[in-house]
Amino acid sequence: MRSPDACCGRRRGKRVNVRGCAMRTIWLGADGHTVEIIDQTRLPHELVITKLATVADAARAIGTMQVRGAPLIGAAAAYGVALAVAEDPSDEGLAAATTELAATRPTAVNLRWALAEMKRALQVVSEERRFAAAVVRAGAIAEADIAINRAIGEHGLALIADLWRHKGGGAARVDVLTHCNAGWLATVDWGTALAPVYKGHDAGMDIHVWVDETRPRNQGMSLTAWELRQHGVKHTVVADNTAGHLMQGGMVDLCIVGSDRTTATGDVCNKIGTYLVALAAKDNGVPFYVGLPSPTIDFSVSNGVAAIPIEQRAADEVATVTGRTADGRVEKVRVVPEGSVVANYGFDVTPARLVSGPITE
Amino acid sequence: MRSPDACCGRRRGKRVNVRGCAMRTIWLGADGHTVEIIDQTRLPHELVITKLATVADAARAIGTMQVRGAPLIGAAAAYGVALAVAEDPSDEGLAAATTELAATRPTAVNLRWALAEMKRALQVVSEERRFAAAVVRAGAIAEADIAINRAIGEHGLALIADLWRHKGGGAARVDVLTHCNAGWLATVDWGTALAPVYKGHDAGMDIHVWVDETRPRNQGMSLTAWELRQHGVKHTVVADNTAGHLMQGGMVDLCIVGSDRTTATGDVCNKIGTYLVALAAKDNGVPFYVGLPSPTIDFSVSNGVAAIPIEQRAADEVATVTGRTADGRVEKVRVVPEGSVVANYGFDVTPARLVSGPITE
Repeated sequence: MRSPDACCGRRRGKRVNVRGCAMRTIWLGADGHTVEIIDQTRLPHELVITKLATVADAARAIGTMQVRGAPLIGAAAAYGVALAVAEDPSDEGLAAATTELAATRPTAVNLRWALAEMKRALQVVSEERRFAAAVVRAGAIAEADIAINRAIGEHGLALIADLWRHKGGGAARVDVLTHCNAGWLATVDWGTALAPVYKGHDAGMDIHVWVDETRPRNQGMSLTAWELRQHGVKHTVVADNTAGHLMQGGMVDLCIVGSDRTTATGDVCNKIGTYLVALAAKDNGVPFYVGLPSPTIDFSVSNGVAAIPIEQRAADEVATVTGRTADGRVEKVRVVPEGSVVANYGFDVTPARLVSGPITE
Repeated sequence: MRSPDACCGRRRGKRVNVRGCAMRTIWLGADGHTVEIIDQTRLPHELVITKLATVADAARAIGTMQVRGAPLIGAAAAYGVALAVAEDPSDEGLAAATTELAATRPTAVNLRWALAEMKRALQVVSEERRFAAAVVRAGAIAEADIAINRAIGEHGLALIADLWRHKGGGAARVDVLTHCNAGWLATVDWGTALAPVYKGHDAGMDIHVWVDETRPRNQGMSLTAWELRQHGVKHTVVADNTAGHLMQGGMVDLCIVGSDRTTATGDVCNKIGTYLVALAAKDNGVPFYVGLPSPTIDFSVSNGVAAIPIEQRAADEVATVTGRTADGRVEKVRVVPEGSVVANYGFDVTPARLVSGPITE
């Protein structure tokens, strides 16, 4: 674990900046044998780069949400397979690694998609060439994610530009509401929901983002606010409860969220609370879009509410909050009374009837 | 400020218990000249009784939410007027006190109602008898609140009992979802939304309450969970974002919330996020009731969304969280990145079309 070097060479064609320096969320280490990630559980308090050396490291990073967001989970799982075949390149090793990695998060479909991609690619390669092939394939998955998100950004930008023109163009401000983090931190780069925001901002439009804090893990407050601020995009953090009031008051022009799994019929499984945002959008005539890379679509499921497994996570994520004390220490505090039971559902399903449209590549 | 004595004589006919001992939220001190309250900003971490000696103390207690909840705000304002006329019984003193107290919270209508009641009662009393009359009138307002809430409890119990019978009666469990705190801590005693729950629990029904944590001030997590636990009512704390998923999954039989102001046409202004709960209830066919004392109705307003002023509170309430550290200290931590703007709307308005019905006295 180390602090990030200034820029450290990770600039390949990206636009979203951290302290003026282009970064991705995951990359192959300079040693060619380890993988490096931004540890997202430490944000926004500290920017820490963590090294993954084994498949167990990768599984833990996904399970504890050091990396999270459907597209990034897919890329991290792909790199996890590479780390696994470096240790054990046999067919049995490959099978064990994909099983271990698949068990880390039940909801995101990209995880299973990336593992299937890796398995398919590596099964036809001899054991001695598997690590090299895995690194190439994982890298290709990461590059494909960036290309997908860049395209989502272009398509979404057209939607935002339409709204901006509808408001008179020029200095008109476009207010976007987003839930959770579907920015570049949720992907390898660019983001899904936020790619159009970055594109619009970079094109000179006055875009302001309402950032739902996104309890219980506060990914909006911790990650979306942090990355928007790093890139200089105007934003306001609000409690999740606020979305309805903002829309009633005409303060939101459009909602854009990400997706962890979308059914063939368009039901969107995303961070818990997304369904409530969609209901408020529908009730107030606000467009509700989903930034949606095609690997997030699960063609095997039609009724999302009935068929998508909803991950239940540790009660501790609801019962405790980590933040910075007045004197600068990072401290975890418990907010639920001792003895009260806590439930922690990670996702909900927004029926297709509430979605204005997907923004795909 | 002192810790509460064991039971300390505050037992007058109440049922809701703290550590097996009946308590109210506000009462005239044993000295006959001060008012005592439970400092609700210290819950659930500490049960602290605070003494109010002046109208400034009362105004601060309301403004900082040491006392909160529309009915309790009304009672606290009434006692605040008594403290004021003890200092200055003149007409000018009375007018200044009501102005000071009215400015503490803009949304709750009970505050203005209680102040008008006190003013009307005291205007016709000579200066030398004003303090005694004020204490009597404030006490009557507090007693009236208890009687109202007890009646809401009886009427709401009939609704819960209907649902329970519909589920087969006997050992059938009734799942109630509530938002914020509209329990006895929000009133002088019993509560509005929770009065039917306490009545049902005491009647031997198996009632389980889903407790929305209620960001940003966490009154669900801090107050509702605490008071349900003190009284032995089964409950589960969830992030506010969870309400929709629970209702989609058939895990909620009815929602009951409180109200800070209800229009003549039935629009309900309540804690921010209530509107989202109501939208989810409507979308899933779950009954959505409002525990509603008549002093909470504002007959001067018809369109609640357009006409009720929505209080904006300090950003710090969203940006920081107070809890208990692993080693037992109560600590405040900041969770929003430095430099991110925060907005904090206290209430939203649920249109009457989403409300199954009010439960009044």
